[in-house]
Amino acid sequence: MLYFLSDYTEGCHPKILEALARTNLVSQPGYGEDIWCASAAEKLRALCGEVDVRFLSGGTQANLVVISALLRRHEAVVAAETGHIAVHEAGAIEFTGHKVLTLPSHAGKLDAGELDACMRRFYADATHEHMPCPGMVYVSQPTELGTLYTRAELTALHETCRQWELPLFLDGARLGYGLMSPACDVTIRDVAELTDVFYIGGTKVGALCGEALVFRRGVMPRGFATMTKQQGAMLAKGRLLGVQFDALFTDGLYWEISRHAIAEAMALKAAFAEKGTPLFADSPTNQQFVILTPEQMQRLSQSVAFNVWEALPDGRFAVRFVTSWATKHEDVLKLKELL
Amino acid sequence: MLYFLSDYTEGCHPKILEALARTNLVSQPGYGEDIWCASAAEKLRALCGEVDVRFLSGGTQANLVVISALLRRHEAVVAAETGHIAVHEAGAIEFTGHKVLTLPSHAGKLDAGELDACMRRFYADATHEHMPCPGMVYVSQPTELGTLYTRAELTALHETCRQWELPLFLDGARLGYGLMSPACDVTIRDVAELTDVFYIGGTKVGALCGEALVFRRGVMPRGFATMTKQQGAMLAKGRLLGVQFDALFTDGLYWEISRHAIAEAMALKAAFAEKGTPLFADSPTNQQFVILTPEQMQRLSQSVAFNVWEALPDGRFAVRFVTSWATKHEDVLKLKELL
Amino acid sequence: MLYFLSDYTEGCHPKILEALARTNLVSQPGYGEDIWCASAAEKLRALCGEVDVRFLSGGTQANLVVISALLRRHEAVVAAETGHIAVHEAGAIEFTGHKVLTLPSHAGKLDAGELDACMRRFYADATHEHMPCPGMVYVSQPTELGTLYTRAELTALHETCRQWELPLFLDGARLGYGLMSPACDVTIRDVAELTDVFYIGGTKVGALCGEALVFRRGVMPRGFATMTKQQGAMLAKGRLLGVQFDALFTDGLYWEISRHAIAEAMALKAAFAEKGTPLFADSPTNQQFVILTPEQMQRLSQSVAFNVWEALPDGRFAVRFVTSWATKHEDVLKLKELL
Amino acid sequence: MLYFLSDYTEGCHPKILEALARTNLVSQPGYGEDIWCASAAEKLRALCGEVDVRFLSGGTQANLVVISALLRRHEAVVAAETGHIAVHEAGAIEFTGHKVLTLPSHAGKLDAGELDACMRRFYADATHEHMPCPGMVYVSQPTELGTLYTRAELTALHETCRQWELPLFLDGARLGYGLMSPACDVTIRDVAELTDVFYIGGTKVGALCGEALVFRRGVMPRGFATMTKQQGAMLAKGRLLGVQFDALFTDGLYWEISRHAIAEAMALKAAFAEKGTPLFADSPTNQQFVILTPEQMQRLSQSVAFNVWEALPDGRFAVRFVTSWATKHEDVLKLKELL
Repeated sequence: MLYFLSDYTEGCHPKILEALARTNLVSQPGYGEDIWCASAAEKLRALCGEVDVRFLSGGTQANLVVISALLRRHEAVVAAETGHIAVHEAGAIEFTGHKVLTLPSHAGKLDAGELDACMRRFYADATHEHMPCPGMVYVSQPTELGTLYTRAELTALHETCRQWELPLFLDGARLGYGLMSPACDVTIRDVAELTDVFYIGGTKVGALCGEALVFRRGVMPRGFATMTKQQGAMLAKGRLLGVQFDALFTDGLYWEISRHAIAEAMALKAAFAEKGTPLFADSPTNQQFVILTPEQMQRLSQSVAFNVWEALPDGRFAVRFVTSWATKHEDVLKLKELL
Repeated sequence: MLYFLSDYTEGCHPKILEALARTNLVSQPGYGEDIWCASAAEKLRALCGEVDVRFLSGGTQANLVVISALLRRHEAVVAAETGHIAVHEAGAIEFTGHKVLTLPSHAGKLDAGELDACMRRFYADATHEHMPCPGMVYVSQPTELGTLYTRAELTALHETCRQWELPLFLDGARLGYGLMSPACDVTIRDVAELTDVFYIGGTKVGALCGEALVFRRGVMPRGFATMTKQQGAMLAKGRLLGVQFDALFTDGLYWEISRHAIAEAMALKAAFAEKGTPLFADSPTNQQFVILTPEQMQRLSQSVAFNVWEALPDGRFAVRFVTSWATKHEDVLKLKELL
Repeated sequence: MLYFLSDYTEGCHPKILEALARTNLVSQPGYGEDIWCASAAEKLRALCGEVDVRFLSGGTQANLVVISALLRRHEAVVAAETGHIAVHEAGAIEFTGHKVLTLPSHAGKLDAGELDACMRRFYADATHEHMPCPGMVYVSQPTELGTLYTRAELTALHETCRQWELPLFLDGARLGYGLMSPACDVTIRDVAELTDVFYIGGTKVGALCGEALVFRRGVMPRGFATMTKQQGAMLAKGRLLGVQFDALFTDGLYWEISRHAIAEAMALKAAFAEKGTPLFADSPTNQQFVILTPEQMQRLSQSVAFNVWEALPDGRFAVRFVTSWATKHEDVLKLKELL
Repeated sequence: MLYFLSDYTEGCHPKILEALARTNLVSQPGYGEDIWCASAAEKLRALCGEVDVRFLSGGTQANLVVISALLRRHEAVVAAETGHIAVHEAGAIEFTGHKVLTLPSHAGKLDAGELDACMRRFYADATHEHMPCPGMVYVSQPTELGTLYTRAELTALHETCRQWELPLFLDGARLGYGLMSPACDVTIRDVAELTDVFYIGGTKVGALCGEALVFRRGVMPRGFATMTKQQGAMLAKGRLLGVQFDALFTDGLYWEISRHAIAEAMALKAAFAEKGTPLFADSPTNQQFVILTPEQMQRLSQSVAFNVWEALPDGRFAVRFVTSWATKHEDVLKLKELL
């Protein structure tokens, strides 16, 4: 079976496993107060500037912990209608008491002008005190559809958010795969400067688990550790996250992993083009979306694991193929044969 | 530095690391639908009977996910006033909307008779609809103070709970260290039969992270997966938990780890007795509580890592020494020298 | 100033004031256990069949108490995208932990076929456990736009809900104004039979405050009184609600009030037609929506109180004029003069 | 039947009914933006200084809205273990996500020294980030047991709270009955100056419903109206509360009502003393607590409505007799006969 199901279908990059083994018997305090969390944070500060870094286990957790920590009680988070938190997060944000307000999606992205118009409309409405108050903005890079914000788009969002005093939160569950795309003109330093908080996804980029939260200095609220514990998001063995992120940001492993996945995704995209398989979305990152007929889908699924994204009105299917650090080039070639 | 700070200050048992390495490149679906979660669950069913098994990352998470899944909206959970969820859980249970109702602690334990009296009092009170309704009972084995419920005590609680239709939930964050104590007359099968849901702690018993929830058949609510996701408690790489628990319950590793820690704890206890260090609590498990003078504390802490539990009224300190799978016997001997 | 701002801009119908005065010195227990709550409930049972009746203070409160009482922890409520709970409830439903899932609005109404398709799509999606589970359906009669479900439409929704085991909840904040519209073919008995729970609005239909919840027998959850108290929704002087609803359902006062408002709304609608003021929505109930130019709006607002509903893209405004039990026919005539 | 069951067993003071009738047909905007809310607030500012005033329907509602508005997400409220929010509030505070931390009760009161010690202990505990952080303090005047804080006691609490930056919240559900007690050396101005927010109870002091929240200038959080709406606590006809409080604070009606109830309570207390009925608590306010034998209780309850407070270990019962604006002196005399 060829595996293109997701970027979390194998364990972790071998260098992470090595790091876990190497550090295994060193005694260190729990709850993220170990030397590796400190070292990983230091490495991220070297990349991002004066930031506060914390580590959490997974993406939904990062989203709900950050959003519920930054919003005030009566506030809502603004997201694209296709945003992960609006669709696939099991109501996790609402469970913390906050509405997800949606704006139109433009290939998965929010438009700064529409955000500005939405804010104007809100405050112009005489009854706005009877509506949930927009209190922060959520985007992801790459988006749910694998697309990318340009530096100009992110800057425009940053400025609109600044103007309306809305913290801007960037979900980077697949950040490496975004930043290493040849189509991307945004650097990690840009992300750190243009957002108030973001996270660097580990789970989908080579780690066993873990996301690194990066807060612009001054943004992380007092009591954040208690909030994290309160949501069951503080690991006793915080070292598990520290060791992994320390390894990921040693000698550029994170970027190396990401570049590999992008190279394979581009090879996949070229294969689809060559074979005439139509694109469902034009993604420059590690998720490739194409359209298959029922017959193609049936046939392929006998030897390839992939994801059905959406049943199309014409009876065909949008499907997703995902590459990762673990994707083997020979599997891409085999898949091409099967198309 | 001798490390007796806690049972989560090292990585994981080497056999777990081996299992992670061995399975690392096998492609498997995410979210706990992998072969190792299935295999580990099967092994736990062999020990516990017809139960439903799910895996979560940590203890606070297990407590809040289970309690909020089992309680109805207006219900509260009953715990000993020293119970972990009543004291050290950062308000995690309340954050899910539920009160923790406390009863007196008897060396960390609830008394079935007092629980029964509490329930009688509640329903006898004409205003009981104005009070949070007791909806389930929380205990831990061993308790926060390292003590153990006897089989008779657990059976009494089980019967009282049955009579009042209260699910009984047992927090087994350190279950192995409890069950392997020579003072324990309770088996894991007893736990499975006398509770409605419990968990088998991995984080503190040799794993990098992970707790195995064990539900009596019929107790796990419909929608539990969604609830778990909603609380950020579902790992994309669920395999991380499955592989570890599969290893822990292969060839009795979990019990071997636990027995080792208990043996070292008993050696420690004997050392304290020999040196005349007074006990703060008489614990038959892997946490040992003694009383130190300020001078002793000062001196010891230069070369030993341990935990200050409580400042005593007389100026002395209750302190905690913890053993684990990783405790070396030579360290116990060295500590004895230092007493 | 002519007042067409809303149906809650005066006190209460004089007969309610009389009832409050008449009963004022009678001593009765609190929390809804008084003789008037009992009597009002009895009168509603005579109209609705074997139902359970409870009284709450206001509409948002009724919506959040009912929805959070009926949903399970991981479930969401389905509403039209224009539904009150989706737009104007300040995030009250989300504050209780539940997402509001929206479907397209057809003149304010949900379509049973689209609801059915949504449910099919949900369960067909392999990842549906990662999405909030639709757990009940919310409609209002009349809708946010003053429109009405026909008996056939309500029956279709009832059947779709039955099929998917979704409780159907009808917000009747303005129920009287709906049922007494000549365009309405639905009776209160129909509402009781076609929904699982609904409420009969008092605040907007002649009372000082108060909504009567009507549960189909068996639907009101155990512990509902505690849940109500828990949300601050239980009045110590529950009699305030009982006395008012007892008066409203004595000698058909509720229907008389409603018919009066509808008659005046129809007179208003005729006046708009005669004067060529275009309709924004064609409402058969007590809320009339028309389109005004900025000049008209400016001029009218000097002597008439009304509500700006929406700024239209062409620079004109959708505005709302509302009638109630307190509307005087001479004010409608004066308004006509001013158009 | 003689009614001493509670202070919410009749309607409202006749002058309030008159005010409701007099203002009934005046058209005014909803949601508390009417002239009477403004006028009542003005009258309270004359008494209390530069404060912000808002009106809510009831006591539980006031408690949960204020506490959840002032606490940050990870904070808990400190109360006496007998405090209303700790015992009789159906878990309402926890339902908003916050723990109620309890301290010992001294005749219903918190001790400033113990509060200070609790705060010192909290911050001295190395694991305090794992515990809910005390974020505000709740007291009531009079307390649950009818007792009163002296000016010195309240000043001490005020200073301790100031020192630890804890907002001090005073529940004044029966404030009038407290302040008008001859034993009370605290004025309403003192309350306004020594607390950060308090409320003046209307429901139990002559109104049909309603509590007036009084915030020290600068304490009421931005977005408070939305928070109120979000919890279903904003009445469409806010005038219902405004008219009542405007009447209560016209010509000292609130104080007159309170003095009457206290006079009757003192008559009752004298009657108990004369007849040798032992006190359960020595209350200087409108709630009198005495001890009855089962025979006395049985006999009295045939012609008197009162409240069983607690079953005592010796088989006798603590019972509560309550006076109010509506208590008739002849009823006190009749009760005395029956003792």
